[in-house]
Amino acid sequence: MTKAIFYHAGCPVCISAEHDVISLIGEEKVEIVNLATAKHRIDEAEAAGLKSVPALVLKNGNVLHLNFGASMEDVKA
Amino acid sequence: MTKAIFYHAGCPVCISAEHDVISLIGEEKVEIVNLATAKHRIDEAEAAGLKSVPALVLKNGNVLHLNFGASMEDVKA
Repeated sequence: MTKAIFYHAGCPVCISAEHDVISLIGEEKVEIVNLATAKHRIDEAEAAGLKSVPALVLKNGNVLHLNFGASMEDVKA
Repeated sequence: MTKAIFYHAGCPVCISAEHDVISLIGEEKVEIVNLATAKHRIDEAEAAGLKSVPALVLKNGNVLHLNFGASMEDVKA
Protein backbone atom coordinates (compact mmCIF):
# COMPACT_ATOMS: atom_id res chain seq x y z
CA MET A 1 0.00 0.00 0.00
CA THR A 2 1.66 3.18 -1.13
CA LYS A 3 -0.84 5.72 0.10
CA ALA A 4 -3.83 6.03 2.38
CA ILE A 5 -7.28 5.19 0.98
CA PHE A 6 -10.34 7.24 1.87
CA TYR A 7 -13.51 5.22 1.40
CA HIS A 8 -16.85 6.96 1.21
CA ALA A 9 -20.27 6.39 -0.24
CA GLY A 10 -21.28 9.79 -1.57
CA CYS A 11 -23.33 10.89 1.42
CA PRO A 12 -23.11 14.53 2.60
CA VAL A 13 -21.15 13.55 5.72
CA CYS A 14 -18.73 11.65 3.47
CA ILE A 15 -18.18 14.52 1.05
CA SER A 16 -17.56 16.99 3.84
CA ALA A 17 -15.04 14.62 5.44
CA GLU A 18 -13.42 14.00 2.06
CA HIS A 19 -12.72 17.71 1.65
CA ASP A 20 -11.31 17.89 5.16
CA VAL A 21 -9.07 14.87 4.71
CA ILE A 22 -7.72 16.12 1.38
CA SER A 23 -6.96 19.53 2.82
CA LEU A 24 -5.32 17.96 5.89
CA ILE A 25 -3.07 15.38 4.30
CA GLY A 26 -2.88 16.43 0.65
CA GLU A 27 -4.57 15.07 -2.45
CA GLU A 28 -1.44 13.29 -3.62
CA LYS A 29 -1.23 11.23 -0.44
CA VAL A 30 -4.69 9.72 -0.49
CA GLU A 31 -6.73 7.68 -2.94
CA ILE A 32 -10.47 8.41 -2.89
CA VAL A 33 -12.83 5.48 -3.41
CA ASN A 34 -16.58 5.96 -3.68
CA LEU A 35 -18.08 2.61 -2.74
CA ALA A 36 -21.51 3.67 -4.01
CA THR A 37 -20.13 3.66 -7.54
CA ALA A 38 -17.15 1.29 -7.11
CA LYS A 39 -19.11 -1.56 -5.58
CA HIS A 40 -16.48 -4.08 -6.66
CA ARG A 41 -14.19 -2.58 -4.02
CA ILE A 42 -16.55 -3.23 -1.09
CA ASP A 43 -14.91 -6.61 -0.37
CA GLU A 44 -11.49 -5.00 -0.27
CA ALA A 45 -12.78 -2.29 2.06
CA GLU A 46 -14.33 -4.78 4.46
CA ALA A 47 -11.18 -6.89 4.41
CA ALA A 48 -9.26 -3.76 5.42
CA GLY A 49 -11.54 -3.48 8.46
CA LEU A 50 -14.10 -0.89 7.38
CA LYS A 51 -17.19 -0.85 9.57
CA SER A 52 -18.67 2.40 8.29
CA VAL A 53 -18.02 5.22 5.88
CA PRO A 54 -16.38 7.62 5.64
CA ALA A 55 -13.15 5.97 6.77
CA LEU A 56 -9.49 6.31 6.08
CA VAL A 57 -7.27 3.24 5.76
CA LEU A 58 -3.70 4.23 6.54
CA LYS A 59 -0.49 2.93 5.05
CA ASN A 60 0.21 1.06 8.29
CA GLY A 61 -3.11 -0.75 7.96
CA ASN A 62 -4.90 1.13 10.72
CA VAL A 63 -8.45 2.25 9.99
CA LEU A 64 -9.71 5.66 11.11
CA HIS A 65 -13.49 5.77 11.01
CA LEU A 66 -14.54 9.39 10.71
CA ASN A 67 -17.86 11.11 11.43
CA PHE A 68 -20.39 8.39 10.96
CA GLY A 69 -22.13 8.53 7.60
CA ALA A 70 -23.38 5.04 6.84
CA SER A 71 -22.70 1.49 7.93
CA MET A 72 -21.18 -0.99 5.49
CA GLU A 73 -24.53 -2.81 5.53
CA ASP A 74 -26.18 0.33 4.16
CA VAL A 75 -23.50 0.65 1.51
CA LYS A 76 -24.03 -2.94 0.38
CA ALA A 77 -27.81 -2.60 0.23
CA MET B 1 -7.16 29.04 15.32
CA THR B 2 -3.76 28.47 13.83
CA LYS B 3 -3.63 24.72 13.83
CA ALA B 4 -5.83 21.69 14.26
CA ILE B 5 -6.50 20.42 17.78
CA PHE B 6 -6.63 16.72 18.54
CA TYR B 7 -8.64 16.06 21.70
CA HIS B 8 -8.35 12.75 23.45
CA ALA B 9 -8.79 11.31 26.90
CA GLY B 10 -5.93 8.88 27.25
CA CYS B 11 -7.83 5.75 26.31
CA PRO B 12 -6.07 3.13 24.13
CA VAL B 13 -8.25 4.00 21.10
CA CYS B 14 -7.28 7.64 21.60
CA ILE B 15 -3.55 6.98 21.80
CA SER B 16 -3.57 4.83 18.70
CA ALA B 17 -5.49 7.51 16.79
CA GLU B 18 -3.13 10.17 18.12
CA HIS B 19 -0.14 8.38 16.62
CA ASP B 20 -1.97 8.00 13.32
CA VAL B 21 -3.03 11.63 13.17
CA ILE B 22 0.46 12.88 13.97
CA SER B 23 2.03 10.69 11.34
CA LEU B 24 -0.61 11.76 8.79
CA ILE B 25 -0.59 15.49 9.19
CA GLY B 26 2.65 16.20 11.06
CA GLU B 27 3.31 17.00 14.70
CA GLU B 28 3.84 20.71 13.99
CA LYS B 29 0.36 21.07 12.51
CA VAL B 30 -1.67 19.73 15.41
CA GLU B 31 -2.01 20.54 19.10
CA ILE B 32 -2.68 17.54 21.31
CA VAL B 33 -5.03 18.02 24.28
CA ASN B 34 -5.65 15.27 26.81
CA LEU B 35 -9.01 16.10 28.39
CA ALA B 36 -8.46 13.54 31.13
CA THR B 37 -5.67 15.70 32.51
CA ALA B 38 -6.67 19.11 31.06
CA LYS B 39 -10.22 19.11 32.39
CA HIS B 40 -10.39 22.90 32.18
CA ARG B 41 -10.48 22.55 28.40
CA ILE B 42 -13.60 20.36 28.31
CA ASP B 43 -15.87 23.41 27.91
CA GLU B 44 -13.84 24.65 24.98
CA ALA B 45 -13.96 21.19 23.38
CA GLU B 46 -17.71 20.93 23.74
CA ALA B 47 -18.17 24.45 22.38
CA ALA B 48 -16.16 23.36 19.33
CA GLY B 49 -18.69 20.57 18.79
CA LEU B 50 -16.99 17.54 20.32
CA LYS B 51 -19.36 14.67 20.97
CA SER B 52 -16.76 12.01 21.65
CA VAL B 53 -13.03 11.46 21.79
CA PRO B 54 -10.76 11.08 20.00
CA ALA B 55 -11.66 13.94 17.68
CA LEU B 56 -9.85 16.42 15.54
CA VAL B 57 -11.05 20.03 15.34
CA LEU B 58 -9.83 21.52 12.07
CA LYS B 59 -8.73 25.06 11.35
CA ASN B 60 -11.98 25.61 9.41
CA GLY B 61 -13.96 24.66 12.51
CA ASN B 62 -15.10 21.26 11.24
CA VAL B 63 -14.91 18.40 13.72
CA LEU B 64 -13.76 14.96 12.66
CA HIS B 65 -14.73 12.38 15.25
CA LEU B 66 -12.40 9.40 14.88
CA ASN B 67 -12.71 5.80 16.00
CA PHE B 68 -15.03 6.03 18.96
CA GLY B 69 -13.21 5.90 22.28
CA ALA B 70 -15.44 7.61 24.84
CA SER B 71 -18.35 10.01 24.90
CA MET B 72 -17.93 13.48 26.35
CA GLU B 73 -20.21 12.38 29.20
CA ASP B 74 -17.66 9.71 30.11
CA VAL B 75 -14.84 12.24 29.94
CA LYS B 76 -16.67 14.60 32.30
CA ALA B 77 -17.53 11.87 34.79
